[in-house]
Amino acid sequence: MKRRIYLKKKSLEEAKAISSVLATLIRLGTETVQVPQSIGRVTAEPIFAKISSPPYLCAAMDGIAVASKITFGATDESPKILTLGKEAFFINTGNPLPSGTDAVIMIEEVYQIDSQRVEIRESAYPWQHVRPIGEDFLVSEMILPVNHRISPYDIGILLASGHLEVKVKKKPKVLILPTGSELMDPYESNLTPSKIIEINSYILCGRVAQDGGEPIRHPLVEDHFDQIKRALYSISEEVDLILLLSGSSAGSEDFTRSIIEESGEVLVHGISMMPGKPTLLGKFRERPIIGIPGYPVSAVLAYEELVSPILHHSLGLIKPSRPKLKAKSMKKIPSKLGVEEFLRVKMGKVGEKVYLNPLPRGAGVLTSFTHADGVVRIPPFSEGLDEGQEIEVELLKPPEEVLDAVVMVGSHDLTLDLLANLLRRRYPPVFFSSHPVGSLGGIFALREGSCHIAGIHLLDPDSGEYNLPYIQNYLKGKELRMIHLVFREQGLIIRPGNPKDIKGLKDLTRKGILFINRQKGSGTRILFDHLLKSLSIDPKEIQGYEREEFTHMGVASMVASGIADAGLGILSAARALGLDFIPVAKERYDLLIPSTFFEDRRIQTLIETIRSEEFKTQVLQMGGYDVSRTGEELEIPS
Amino acid sequence: MKRRIYLKKKSLEEAKAISSVLATLIRLGTETVQVPQSIGRVTAEPIFAKISSPPYLCAAMDGIAVASKITFGATDESPKILTLGKEAFFINTGNPLPSGTDAVIMIEEVYQIDSQRVEIRESAYPWQHVRPIGEDFLVSEMILPVNHRISPYDIGILLASGHLEVKVKKKPKVLILPTGSELMDPYESNLTPSKIIEINSYILCGRVAQDGGEPIRHPLVEDHFDQIKRALYSISEEVDLILLLSGSSAGSEDFTRSIIEESGEVLVHGISMMPGKPTLLGKFRERPIIGIPGYPVSAVLAYEELVSPILHHSLGLIKPSRPKLKAKSMKKIPSKLGVEEFLRVKMGKVGEKVYLNPLPRGAGVLTSFTHADGVVRIPPFSEGLDEGQEIEVELLKPPEEVLDAVVMVGSHDLTLDLLANLLRRRYPPVFFSSHPVGSLGGIFALREGSCHIAGIHLLDPDSGEYNLPYIQNYLKGKELRMIHLVFREQGLIIRPGNPKDIKGLKDLTRKGILFINRQKGSGTRILFDHLLKSLSIDPKEIQGYEREEFTHMGVASMVASGIADAGLGILSAARALGLDFIPVAKERYDLLIPSTFFEDRRIQTLIETIRSEEFKTQVLQMGGYDVSRTGEELEIPS
Repeated sequence: MKRRIYLKKKSLEEAKAISSVLATLIRLGTETVQVPQSIGRVTAEPIFAKISSPPYLCAAMDGIAVASKITFGATDESPKILTLGKEAFFINTGNPLPSGTDAVIMIEEVYQIDSQRVEIRESAYPWQHVRPIGEDFLVSEMILPVNHRISPYDIGILLASGHLEVKVKKKPKVLILPTGSELMDPYESNLTPSKIIEINSYILCGRVAQDGGEPIRHPLVEDHFDQIKRALYSISEEVDLILLLSGSSAGSEDFTRSIIEESGEVLVHGISMMPGKPTLLGKFRERPIIGIPGYPVSAVLAYEELVSPILHHSLGLIKPSRPKLKAKSMKKIPSKLGVEEFLRVKMGKVGEKVYLNPLPRGAGVLTSFTHADGVVRIPPFSEGLDEGQEIEVELLKPPEEVLDAVVMVGSHDLTLDLLANLLRRRYPPVFFSSHPVGSLGGIFALREGSCHIAGIHLLDPDSGEYNLPYIQNYLKGKELRMIHLVFREQGLIIRPGNPKDIKGLKDLTRKGILFINRQKGSGTRILFDHLLKSLSIDPKEIQGYEREEFTHMGVASMVASGIADAGLGILSAARALGLDFIPVAKERYDLLIPSTFFEDRRIQTLIETIRSEEFKTQVLQMGGYDVSRTGEELEIPS
Repeated sequence: MKRRIYLKKKSLEEAKAISSVLATLIRLGTETVQVPQSIGRVTAEPIFAKISSPPYLCAAMDGIAVASKITFGATDESPKILTLGKEAFFINTGNPLPSGTDAVIMIEEVYQIDSQRVEIRESAYPWQHVRPIGEDFLVSEMILPVNHRISPYDIGILLASGHLEVKVKKKPKVLILPTGSELMDPYESNLTPSKIIEINSYILCGRVAQDGGEPIRHPLVEDHFDQIKRALYSISEEVDLILLLSGSSAGSEDFTRSIIEESGEVLVHGISMMPGKPTLLGKFRERPIIGIPGYPVSAVLAYEELVSPILHHSLGLIKPSRPKLKAKSMKKIPSKLGVEEFLRVKMGKVGEKVYLNPLPRGAGVLTSFTHADGVVRIPPFSEGLDEGQEIEVELLKPPEEVLDAVVMVGSHDLTLDLLANLLRRRYPPVFFSSHPVGSLGGIFALREGSCHIAGIHLLDPDSGEYNLPYIQNYLKGKELRMIHLVFREQGLIIRPGNPKDIKGLKDLTRKGILFINRQKGSGTRILFDHLLKSLSIDPKEIQGYEREEFTHMGVASMVASGIADAGLGILSAARALGLDFIPVAKERYDLLIPSTFFEDRRIQTLIETIRSEEFKTQVLQMGGYDVSRTGEELEIPS
């Protein structure tokens, strides 16, 4: 099979320069809309005031309007009496000044004698409490420039200056054309188990609308040259920009490039960014066309880095950058030289320091984007981040949500999601960010001060005791508090119906049985190794002992996928995926909290929530948990 | 007249605490919406995945699917040949793995021999280029918590996890009820010259929608007890929150409080904030009701500080704070002790320093909000800002627009608006921020390095020369460049038809003629004083000589309002307001630029724009300008 010849791969910077030239192909028309409907639209011309605001001399206060000269000499000792309707006129804020008057005396300073007369005890200076014409703006003044995105406040200025409608740029029309025979549209077909749900077109429709464009989604098209071509020709004349989705891989059914070249030109095919490499930029019938890669994270990044700037450019706007924050990497994170990598990260602020932890880096893991607090750009000339290195993170969430979160590092447990959800129902919500790195990882994070809570379930094989020996060992001298979360059942997770007839740990050494392990330092791994030892089983006899997963659900997924036959994990993980379970041990999962954080409002709310009946009920529903002592504070002997 | 008894004024902090209690009165129902329509909505419950993503083992690359064990031993030297459809299966990214296979070999590593056979030159390891089930997320996993605002990316996760619709909170319904007999609705009445256009309800409708609420605007109601009451009772049961606009001043027609007290309770009336003092907080039929003050800046601040947090609270969200930036105040800005003032400011970054200049502080000046780069909170315990003091500014515009702007300080001229508008049409746009403080103010700002450009027209009375003597005097030793902007006509601005029969400067000393002056340090003031001296007119003989305005339009407005009979200013200002003009001098307006900034892209674009025919044409259309040498660089003798 012939290798496809890519154009020379471009750097992201080069690709951006080309996309900014492509943007100039778009020439938006104008349209006139009613002012209240113009929020978010972009002015097509400068707007000048048709009338001044205020349009006449008017009272700046409620009170009486007077001619200042008749008030001269009024004092507490010798007040002046004015006749209403002749010398003094009741007036409200905003009313025009009656002719002959040039000052307003505040209502608080006016003493009414009877229905015809008022008394004043202070003189008024000319134009006192009077708003001059045009105090806000004057007729003919430019109130908005061209290429200005209209805000709700601008609506006020437009209406006040005599505009009922406003000329704005037409929204750029964006054709979103999803292609791919492996895909199915969630709304147009019955979900079949052998196809993948097409989501990128829906994500991009949402983003285009947010960016001020008008998304036009074409129904999903199969990977056939003629079908894609027909779809493109049928509608492309009506749009300003074309997004051809999932048409830029090296796959056998990839016809994007040849179709484009029939009526245009491919300028970029392949960008040294990760994810997002197979992005394509070109012209099709004198319009920009972008080939969007199929993996969702690649699609999102191609959109954010290349398409969104084109849309902003077409409207005369600059794409606003994301807010930024510096954070320290907790570990070494290698990255490929020559490629700009977009690393999605979780962050946390503990004390004054802000830390980051990478999320899964695969282009297919969209949750790495939706769960992320931010994105780190690792530039092409860098080989990655060193442990402890500080780097700028572009935030994907509001800063308060990132910086106010309670950071838990340690072992993974399914009850933590329930807890996070309940904490979000409080007001103000407590944001709970958990980083599954195993129990020992939690201990180490606590030692170096990079978390508020460590979640641990560490069996000491010698004493048979949980957690305390490890605290003695690794955290001696630290002032700590410990809250018990749950007891939980660990066991072998196996396929439904137990096709390989596994009865216990001893069966793991049988030929034809493939095990999936947890990572070193996790409580589950320590438990597993302890169990093997007590049963005198040699790990070398277990096929798959070397292959590690990081969470219970990861292990369960390997079993459900048929990649492994068995793994050690918690009952709730097995249940979630409909797998069978052979119990082998019951263990204690505790939360370890430095005393300095213990009285913090967020931590106290968290403990309250753990102690709530609602939490315990939800935990019990998952199965495999014992909540009889949940929420108790456990003593740590010093 | 009896003074109205306010409740004891509350601090903003106290008022916020009360509004946060009021927020708990709102209980939003839930509704189910289609996933693509749910962007911006808030989850009413946690969402769990119904299916895993990917839902099956699938190819992570385009290539061939194989059983890894039959590939063992393949090398460049001893390649293996596989039969298509039996041992090897072409597969695209995302396709499920055919049964019996457990690895994918990339298409780039596959060599097709004929239609039935392929050759491979490397062995595949088990599960190579295969995505496990649930690599992104697993069935039963919590993919979104409750109280989460749904983003376009979340749409992808929701669809991929098997959700076609999602349960969200109903939008909080907000009644916006404008009242005021001095007001007219721009869309419901012919604009009459004696009323003010009601704008606050339209601004707030826009903001409520942005905050995720559903605005329900009631038509404008006159200030009559019964009408307001009827309006409130007719609709209040259908809404979650009531905004009663312009119903909280001390005016004679203010019935808000008594109406509320018939069916509820007033909790706060008067907040020590500025603008925004007459804000009212209460309950009406067990709903929060907010009395919004009538001045637009007060209305906006009352909304942002008190209403917007209630809406966010009702949705379980935290109102995101504005991005912040530190800036130095260029002058002393006193502020009232005991009041939290919201000072609207223009900002500029020159070199590494960020400066701020206050905008007009009146509550009626909405342009002070729309033109502002940011807002400074001056806390109640502070008496204001000292000259040079650094303070945090909450940004109202994207940081790049604020920090990348070309900052011009100096004299005001109407051509600067035209220039700013043309610069915005460039791409990337150049943001041009001009601060009218007079020519000498520009010179001083340049000396202390707080602007990129000073705009000056300074006559040296001794030599009769413009600008250069001042540069010699104040900026000696500075490396500067000078670009000529325009020649312009200065003259007396007088009312149409010249009712006071003013023929020239000598008439200003006549009894009954009221003059309006420009501020000290402005080029126009220096010109005026020079003209008086040359005509031997004693300033003391001129009534109004002491009253100062800061811009040409300010002077023209005073004349148009009838507050003054004459002022010195430029022809274009007189023309804009339909006033008469008696020319007295022609002067040179130049732009002074430190050499260090001269080659900057933005400055170069600005000079190019000044030299464009389009700019010159637009300037000539305003009248009173001579562009014969516009854009020329003038030599500065050293």
